[in-house]
Amino acid sequence: MTDKKIMHVNAFNMNCVGHIHHGLWTHPRDQSTQYHTLNYWTDIAKLLERGLFDGIFIADVVGYYDVYQRGVDLTLREAIQLPVNNPWLLVSAMAAVTEHLGFGLTATVNAHQPYTFARDVSTLDQLSNGRIGWNIVTGYVDSGARGLGQDGLADHDSRYDRADDFLALAYKFWEGSWEDGAVIADKARRIHTLPGKVHPVVHDGPFYRANAIHMSAPSPQRTPVLFQAGTSQRGLQFAGQHGEGIFIGARTPEAVRGASRKLRAAAVAAGRRADDIKIYVGAAVVVAPTQAEAEEKYADYLAYASAEGGLAHFAASTGVDFAQYDLDEPIVYGQGNAIQSAVQAAQQQGLTTRRKLLEQFSLGSRYNTIVGDPQQVADALERWIDVGEIDGFNLSRIVVPETWEDFASLAVPELQNRGRYRTRYEEGSLRHKLFGRGDGLPANHPGAQQRR
Amino acid sequence: MTDKKIMHVNAFNMNCVGHIHHGLWTHPRDQSTQYHTLNYWTDIAKLLERGLFDGIFIADVVGYYDVYQRGVDLTLREAIQLPVNNPWLLVSAMAAVTEHLGFGLTATVNAHQPYTFARDVSTLDQLSNGRIGWNIVTGYVDSGARGLGQDGLADHDSRYDRADDFLALAYKFWEGSWEDGAVIADKARRIHTLPGKVHPVVHDGPFYRANAIHMSAPSPQRTPVLFQAGTSQRGLQFAGQHGEGIFIGARTPEAVRGASRKLRAAAVAAGRRADDIKIYVGAAVVVAPTQAEAEEKYADYLAYASAEGGLAHFAASTGVDFAQYDLDEPIVYGQGNAIQSAVQAAQQQGLTTRRKLLEQFSLGSRYNTIVGDPQQVADALERWIDVGEIDGFNLSRIVVPETWEDFASLAVPELQNRGRYRTRYEEGSLRHKLFGRGDGLPANHPGAQQRR
Repeated sequence: MTDKKIMHVNAFNMNCVGHIHHGLWTHPRDQSTQYHTLNYWTDIAKLLERGLFDGIFIADVVGYYDVYQRGVDLTLREAIQLPVNNPWLLVSAMAAVTEHLGFGLTATVNAHQPYTFARDVSTLDQLSNGRIGWNIVTGYVDSGARGLGQDGLADHDSRYDRADDFLALAYKFWEGSWEDGAVIADKARRIHTLPGKVHPVVHDGPFYRANAIHMSAPSPQRTPVLFQAGTSQRGLQFAGQHGEGIFIGARTPEAVRGASRKLRAAAVAAGRRADDIKIYVGAAVVVAPTQAEAEEKYADYLAYASAEGGLAHFAASTGVDFAQYDLDEPIVYGQGNAIQSAVQAAQQQGLTTRRKLLEQFSLGSRYNTIVGDPQQVADALERWIDVGEIDGFNLSRIVVPETWEDFASLAVPELQNRGRYRTRYEEGSLRHKLFGRGDGLPANHPGAQQRR
Repeated sequence: MTDKKIMHVNAFNMNCVGHIHHGLWTHPRDQSTQYHTLNYWTDIAKLLERGLFDGIFIADVVGYYDVYQRGVDLTLREAIQLPVNNPWLLVSAMAAVTEHLGFGLTATVNAHQPYTFARDVSTLDQLSNGRIGWNIVTGYVDSGARGLGQDGLADHDSRYDRADDFLALAYKFWEGSWEDGAVIADKARRIHTLPGKVHPVVHDGPFYRANAIHMSAPSPQRTPVLFQAGTSQRGLQFAGQHGEGIFIGARTPEAVRGASRKLRAAAVAAGRRADDIKIYVGAAVVVAPTQAEAEEKYADYLAYASAEGGLAHFAASTGVDFAQYDLDEPIVYGQGNAIQSAVQAAQQQGLTTRRKLLEQFSLGSRYNTIVGDPQQVADALERWIDVGEIDGFNLSRIVVPETWEDFASLAVPELQNRGRYRTRYEEGSLRHKLFGRGDGLPANHPGAQQRR
């Protein structure tokens, strides 16, 4: 523990009303119903940059949750990630009012084509001066597949195979099509781009093929910082190969350590370094000047939360319609489409009845919740980092923007005093801010193999 | 001519360096090489709103021009719409620094899925308070199809059939999925959305199918203002049915009148009103306080233009590699993929040799160019409106942002004096500003049939 790690903190948000802590949108001070306005986002971005956050990490889902009660009634009443707007379209407004804040943006592989998606990333990475990360998801709700005209989701491992092929082609566009120095924009010589330094990408993979030049010139990072969340065996392999920032769900620092070590071992097995991956857990922090005030604030939040809303969300993750069970009836997991890690967690952590679930979802979710004064919060976060062998946190929003304001004004100074939190932004791209080794992918990353 | 029409003016731009007037990027005052920065766009947006422009109309192409000299060498050297970034990702930054400016955004049907595209539009229409237009294009370069893993473009009419089906489904998402009043965001009653007012869209068309709820709540306009540019027989039918803003290429006011009347007749034949369509022509305006200064400015611009760059662009539009012809050798049109209207225009207007083409492309394009003092420019624009029976202009950029600055400071006051240009913005959405009849589609539009 002598090596004090600086912790990496993202605000975790979504372009919708209810994100993680369901029901809290009804809190009088919560502003999440304003998600469809620009000021909501630019105010958040400015707040986070004042708080020296690494970035804003924006979840997304293509589709919606219709497992609970076999419909969308509660989903709509509690605005459980529906309606949900596209997060990518928010970024230029937030980038224009900030200089350093990173943007971790979720995109679902099967809703995109590599050729145009690669251009989307390059466009934003240029506009933001290298501040873009991509949270790679493979899709997990049937409703989204039905919206896209498919009969349903492909099976889990085949979704990862598709993602592998998608990345293989995207790397070629980002890394291999335009050489460094291709764009010289020389007005006097009348040469914008040197034709000899631009090359068509040729790809003939199991899911994608292409024969075309990337439409965009190279952006500062070329490949965006790659985030991912899978912890299944197949997800672990994918993360070890491609991931630079990985989210793990865990209930305790002790419990996360094993997963953290597995992930770093997967990176090493893929020819990368153990510290080429930053590992994050989700956390809900309720901080106030004193412990009593923090507990009072937490109690106030609980009064607005919807445990049932949390269950409706978890129903979609596990494929189980909890509404069909009596309060104490044993729940049968393992049917329907599901996130494997969610099912495993439910089974391992004794979420065996609806009563137990409702207890655990008291804040509208099962996120790790830390309640206390600045010292207590800093103690808890340090334990997660040191015992859990992780690198940082995605801070969920309980009440927007209060949760992040409190963190910035109370927790950050305490963490800074302990040498655990940056006191100013480093210059450079999001990747450089995270790893300190330049803007581009390191040479040991598979994407870097596509360079000329 | 007693009924003086207010003219509608958009700035015509593209998220790239060379757009219409090729070669002008080399002009010392031209800033288009900064297209990849946010300030470039937010400065333009603020300038256009000061000049009371209707909007900024942003072209796009998925793919690039590789017909001329059977390659991309000149395309790259002169940055002829390559590199080209996604225009949609610019909008939130520009919307945040303006209040009234509209955004006409190009998207290619075959590069999108209706389910996710409908959400993109709803997201931006909400963020901008109803300022979004969609320029519907069906794709015309083979390179784009190859980038998307297709063997090549589908034939012309089948691309329109696909667009018809795309729109049929998109209308259902925009108009039919969420009723007015579905979202009440009532914190006290804990009801964000009334479930009974949200309906799944069911569609089983020749190209697309879906069975899902639209992901976004209704935006101010629901369906964006629909722009389109086709003037083929099939394009005319499509425009008559769907189009609200139509671009026509024409060399003289007299020549455009026939096309304008045909378009309005197509709208009437589709059960709509003749004035449900606004008709625009492209124009390049060089204006200065005196005629002599304007001509001097024009001569200066000509010195930087690339007529050959214009030919390379036109080669992709017509499918003819002009580089293969001697200066005075007769050109054979009608081979390869082509925009039919471009081929027709070339044949009708005597573009029979490379020498004649190079003359006509002296400003790097064949756009209608108006050079003069404010009175002369206003005279010419009025003639286009009155004799051509059109509604407005897409003002191309010769030198960015100088072309639009000159127009705003010199031409606009003269047009305002003549009662031909707005003196302040009307309140309301882009559609309301254009038609004065509310934010939504009129009842006679096919999209409105999808309302509940």
